[in-house]
Amino acid sequence: MAARPYNFSAGPAALPEPVLRQAAEEMLDWHGCGVGVMEMSHRSPQFAEIFAGAEARLREQLAVPTDFDVLFMQGGAIGQNAIVPMNLSRGRPTDHVLSGHWSLRTHQEALRYGEARVAANNAPTGGGHRTHLPAPATWRLSPDAAYVHVCSNETIDGIELHELPDLRALGSDAPLVIDCSSHFASRPIDWSRIGAAYAGAQKNLGPAGLTIVCVRKDLVGHAMRICPAAFNYATVAAHGSMYNTPPTWAIYITGLVLDWMAAEGGVAEIERRNVAKAALLYEAIDTSGYYRNDIAADCRSRMNVPFFLPDDRLTAPFLAGAQERGLLQLKGHKSVGGLRASLYNAMPLEGTRALVAYMREFAARHG
Amino acid sequence: MAARPYNFSAGPAALPEPVLRQAAEEMLDWHGCGVGVMEMSHRSPQFAEIFAGAEARLREQLAVPTDFDVLFMQGGAIGQNAIVPMNLSRGRPTDHVLSGHWSLRTHQEALRYGEARVAANNAPTGGGHRTHLPAPATWRLSPDAAYVHVCSNETIDGIELHELPDLRALGSDAPLVIDCSSHFASRPIDWSRIGAAYAGAQKNLGPAGLTIVCVRKDLVGHAMRICPAAFNYATVAAHGSMYNTPPTWAIYITGLVLDWMAAEGGVAEIERRNVAKAALLYEAIDTSGYYRNDIAADCRSRMNVPFFLPDDRLTAPFLAGAQERGLLQLKGHKSVGGLRASLYNAMPLEGTRALVAYMREFAARHG
Repeated sequence: MAARPYNFSAGPAALPEPVLRQAAEEMLDWHGCGVGVMEMSHRSPQFAEIFAGAEARLREQLAVPTDFDVLFMQGGAIGQNAIVPMNLSRGRPTDHVLSGHWSLRTHQEALRYGEARVAANNAPTGGGHRTHLPAPATWRLSPDAAYVHVCSNETIDGIELHELPDLRALGSDAPLVIDCSSHFASRPIDWSRIGAAYAGAQKNLGPAGLTIVCVRKDLVGHAMRICPAAFNYATVAAHGSMYNTPPTWAIYITGLVLDWMAAEGGVAEIERRNVAKAALLYEAIDTSGYYRNDIAADCRSRMNVPFFLPDDRLTAPFLAGAQERGLLQLKGHKSVGGLRASLYNAMPLEGTRALVAYMREFAARHG
Repeated sequence: MAARPYNFSAGPAALPEPVLRQAAEEMLDWHGCGVGVMEMSHRSPQFAEIFAGAEARLREQLAVPTDFDVLFMQGGAIGQNAIVPMNLSRGRPTDHVLSGHWSLRTHQEALRYGEARVAANNAPTGGGHRTHLPAPATWRLSPDAAYVHVCSNETIDGIELHELPDLRALGSDAPLVIDCSSHFASRPIDWSRIGAAYAGAQKNLGPAGLTIVCVRKDLVGHAMRICPAAFNYATVAAHGSMYNTPPTWAIYITGLVLDWMAAEGGVAEIERRNVAKAALLYEAIDTSGYYRNDIAADCRSRMNVPFFLPDDRLTAPFLAGAQERGLLQLKGHKSVGGLRASLYNAMPLEGTRALVAYMREFAARHG
């Protein structure tokens, strides 16, 4: 069988091949029960087993503390941009760190539900791309904020928050809420610094259509009256994420991916690989004298690496040559342009090596 | 290969075997593009083709008029119970027909967003199960209602509205909004009588996690300010259901199911089969002198058939014997008890025959 191409999509993204093979094998009959996972009642003992396994493995792999609820929801991080303030703002202002495309949208959406303040903004004076994450020491935190929101990995801008701040040390009693969609499960999380974390599954964990929310239990139960029951954390938690029919297939695949993570050595090993892949690619960019990545060194994302050719007219030929070599989905986001390589958990080191080798070849030919 | 068992689950529910086989075959590589559907960017040309195909086939199979938007959303019908009033109530009262479990919940949820009136209620005086759908001529319609809501198939109660009323003939100018989750795509729809229809896909169309909304375009664009952008019909429509990442896998499967429907002869043929299956089962119940279904003859659901044994202590042995014969998921909903057979599109006539044969056998042994 031919090797699969390397898929650098920013999401929905590559999944581990063993997961895809198992899902295909079990499609018509899961573990001898006679029906496939898509066909199971979410109330069946079979799906209850799949669900409990996925949650247990998520808690285990990411060491989610017992005082956090793990909720399997729908609507993506964009949905959470409304759902978070409806659940957690409690009629108080919220503080927002603006560090890129997604945190800006989060802030805009939060304005529907109350006073959403800007605690920090990395917009470059005079325009151009955002290139860093404002240092926590510079955040202007409100004494009365219900929470402080940060996007801990900006998928489009390629900016990652590598160490979650201790807000108490910065003089705030508010919980930190993170949109960690595009680096969730790529590294351990310091839960002691977080009140809530949310993530679309379609980067490191599974297919689109599943949103995972981990929220400290003491923050749950204060939703605004206009919060839909299906998106009320207290309601979702009280019903074990089955107040409405959950996205059963996506939960199943996420469970398989978490199994794969465990078999590969767990999140510590996964992080080690992610560090190695990112180092390889950034080094190739920085030493090329040809490619360019503008992000400040300490904020560079391990997951999403936007980079540019010296002349944008070379982008199309670069992409065509990449495609021929089985290096897929390298086009940059339309708001940034250029190229972008996403190096999620399922991207092997060899895939990153193949990309770097092609980049050198291309630079030698066109440079 | 052994025949698959017959899966009578009320949802998520049985899918056509050819769909499952194709999904398994294409899992690692869709049409030679090198990646599977779960791994595709929703912005890729491949997924754009899958998406456009699914929408086109849905419009074609159900003859959705061009003045309706077709939206692929998340959050299920329970999510829509909030999303509908946030989008369509326009600060005016809404009229609700209460005919069973789901329409009651819809009404309760609508109260968060304005004045939700009860236009009709089939609750039996003195308690017990609901057994009919209030006749449209008896609905108390408000002159100022933003819309009239009805659940056109009550999955749990087994009550179906077989002919959509002409509200104008009843003196109302309001559009009719239907929750048609559990009979969507099982029969043609008279769109001239509807303003909006919504359905979770996990009955007749695909896996859980996809909600289909068909809404007349002139009703869109008047959402409440507190409506999340991800659930604002105008926003979703303007972005071709890609304001947030759509549930790509569920849309793909739904497209395959619609292909299967077309290959089987289309919705008219599917309806003919559904009529035949339901007739077979209801006749077996009514002529048995043993089993009982309490729903008024003209409101009996073709999709969901709750029925009872003469003695509830026989339910467990009935289910055990059914399981042995490959007749799965026949347990009634906990709020109704007894048994329930769901006869969605993917259930073949032979499956219904096998159920009826077993019912006769069981009655002969225990009757």
